[in-house]
Amino acid sequence: MGLSGMKKIVIVGGGFGGIELAKKLRNQHVDITILDKHNYHTFQPLLYQVATGGLEADSIAFPIRKIFKGQKNLKFRVTEVEKVIPAENKLITTIGIITYDYLVIATGSTSNFFGQTEIEQNAMPMKSIPEALNLRSLILQNLEAALIAKNEENERKLLNFVIVGGGPTGVETAGAIAELKKHVLKNDYPELDIQRVNIYLIEGSPELLGPMSKQSQVKSQEFLEELGVAVYTNARVQSYDGNILTLADGRTILSSTVIWSAGVKGVVLEGLNPDCTVRGNRLKVDLINRVECYQNVYAIGDVAAMISEETPNGHPGVAPVAIQQGKLLAKNLINMIEGKGTSNFKYFDKGAMATVGRNRAVVDINKIHFQGVFAWFTWMFVHLMTLVGFRNKLVVFVNWVWSYFSYDRGTRLIIRPFKR
Amino acid sequence: MGLSGMKKIVIVGGGFGGIELAKKLRNQHVDITILDKHNYHTFQPLLYQVATGGLEADSIAFPIRKIFKGQKNLKFRVTEVEKVIPAENKLITTIGIITYDYLVIATGSTSNFFGQTEIEQNAMPMKSIPEALNLRSLILQNLEAALIAKNEENERKLLNFVIVGGGPTGVETAGAIAELKKHVLKNDYPELDIQRVNIYLIEGSPELLGPMSKQSQVKSQEFLEELGVAVYTNARVQSYDGNILTLADGRTILSSTVIWSAGVKGVVLEGLNPDCTVRGNRLKVDLINRVECYQNVYAIGDVAAMISEETPNGHPGVAPVAIQQGKLLAKNLINMIEGKGTSNFKYFDKGAMATVGRNRAVVDINKIHFQGVFAWFTWMFVHLMTLVGFRNKLVVFVNWVWSYFSYDRGTRLIIRPFKR
Repeated sequence: MGLSGMKKIVIVGGGFGGIELAKKLRNQHVDITILDKHNYHTFQPLLYQVATGGLEADSIAFPIRKIFKGQKNLKFRVTEVEKVIPAENKLITTIGIITYDYLVIATGSTSNFFGQTEIEQNAMPMKSIPEALNLRSLILQNLEAALIAKNEENERKLLNFVIVGGGPTGVETAGAIAELKKHVLKNDYPELDIQRVNIYLIEGSPELLGPMSKQSQVKSQEFLEELGVAVYTNARVQSYDGNILTLADGRTILSSTVIWSAGVKGVVLEGLNPDCTVRGNRLKVDLINRVECYQNVYAIGDVAAMISEETPNGHPGVAPVAIQQGKLLAKNLINMIEGKGTSNFKYFDKGAMATVGRNRAVVDINKIHFQGVFAWFTWMFVHLMTLVGFRNKLVVFVNWVWSYFSYDRGTRLIIRPFKR
Repeated sequence: MGLSGMKKIVIVGGGFGGIELAKKLRNQHVDITILDKHNYHTFQPLLYQVATGGLEADSIAFPIRKIFKGQKNLKFRVTEVEKVIPAENKLITTIGIITYDYLVIATGSTSNFFGQTEIEQNAMPMKSIPEALNLRSLILQNLEAALIAKNEENERKLLNFVIVGGGPTGVETAGAIAELKKHVLKNDYPELDIQRVNIYLIEGSPELLGPMSKQSQVKSQEFLEELGVAVYTNARVQSYDGNILTLADGRTILSSTVIWSAGVKGVVLEGLNPDCTVRGNRLKVDLINRVECYQNVYAIGDVAAMISEETPNGHPGVAPVAIQQGKLLAKNLINMIEGKGTSNFKYFDKGAMATVGRNRAVVDINKIHFQGVFAWFTWMFVHLMTLVGFRNKLVVFVNWVWSYFSYDRGTRLIIRPFKR
């Protein structure tokens, strides 16, 4: 029990789901603790723009304390959870033991290398701000190194950029690097033959943007090819040793920069029954997001797998799912505490979109699919509106407008050099 | 000799001086190489705002390659100089040997701990962007740690912030932390008794802002005290072990955060004759910035000490000196190459200013001294105009306007936790 007999709800993770849940519990008679290893919320959909020098990291991060300013029933702690002991309703954390009546796991996902440790050691993930900043440093360092490369093979390796995974992140990253090449590199590196910079996008399935409409899939590939990206579909990565990327069909690409966006897996807390974990390292939850195997443990967002007849693989790992689950869980928790009934989760799919580059995006909203300039503006508008915080909206808007007219990227800075 | 018989000028350092020199040589028949360990120019006067969560680091950094876009007689390399061999007109760098006809050392300055290694290990410098970001992380980490401090002594230590050195950087930093306390911390940390946050500014001499007018000195101290900063003048730091700061008069302050702005020293290249180095680790230069002991080695900005009757201690370590020396040296180098005479350096002092906090600044322009709101706007205007790059100006302006009206700081983010 928390303060003055209130039920104590502990939320692990300050992503879209955790934040939404805590906000919706604002005026309720519950005692909330939210934990995150960072003191900020990350707007993950724009990480790729940080990695490619388009945006300041600080403008897609938002202080969690500020989100909950004035929310009296909530405490926030920067900590990492080492272990959960469900039988004792306890979390062991880096700042001590935290007890709960209800535990909500909203830890999100991380890059999935599918057990290929060599790839994991050498490819660059892009799921957090420090990872995006490392990637930004590496891209720029490799360009600097290419200038002084001792031989042609080495130069080629430094100028080949490979993105593995043709989902939205992969498509957007490939497009952003292509734009960087087109508008920035030729000015920044007059000594380099910019035509030698190659961008590859590798996708295992026959098309890009798997869950989107056929039209969006075809058009996004067309956009990328217009920008000079070599798109390899039906191509699986066999190995990558830091120098040579080998595909399953035997083709090889020499590259110092391999960006991994080929899959994610849930970030599951230590101490949970492994039987509740399903494919993708996600926690199997019922229709009210309760983790099967437990009575008072819930999971929302990317880490939750709500397997049902309608959703045999769970929901897509996108922000709207996490937000909607957070919102509903707030209601359900209050109802349960008050002894009332709960309602089952039903995902309201608002559609999907991806941007490829300047004036080029693809949007699916229900049965409506459109591409090109209007889609691009739609993409920008939706992302700007979803971004947390007025200052962030303003700074991102200023950067985008400036980039649009100047054809430039402002933040091509190696602030902390990346070292393996 | 450089390309096609042109004289080869190598500039080490992309600060105010180095950049100005290289820009002024734009259309000249010389072969310029500029070297810096970073790929960006740092606008040092605003580092303290990065350290205190007011500005993104990326908005006070500017890509060096972009500054020299289209300048055909210039090459830029990211590298560190390991050694200079003046007898052979050679630099040994991390990317190989670089030869020169003229060498210009524009390496600037770094924190001077005056040989006190214990202080150096425990106090926080703030002379580069990574250092400012480390300080930002530490300030925020200590506030987080204070929330869960096990005892009162530990809490006190975490909530005491000490700034050593009452020059512009020290005054501005102390003011910024005081503003942070006043407007942000009370909302961010409702669990903390914010009155327990103490800010100390320690200055060895009898007044703050040494070289400024009496009026500015008195007023800046008054401003700081209004903001709740404890200003200790005539106070010298004896030792700091990471926990206790001891003054020469025996007073002690318990603190986990000691910011060192008590002095700087030149960053001198290895391999130069130690006889050319004077107090503050600066290179002794003549009136055309030629390093005494050499014929073709020059030094400008903070690393140069132009000792003359008029300037017995050299010039102040400020941007205008570096810029003016860079500008004149460009002319003198060309004149020398063309066999013409040189002109001696004469510093045109435009005045000095420092901001203490919201609506509070002090400005000296020649015989004119003013303080308060108008001084504050003057300070902002001058800094905004001096900032390199339109995007940076825009982003900083947006941040300042937003902060002014919201009383907030947007970038209180622990992006890379600081570890000693």
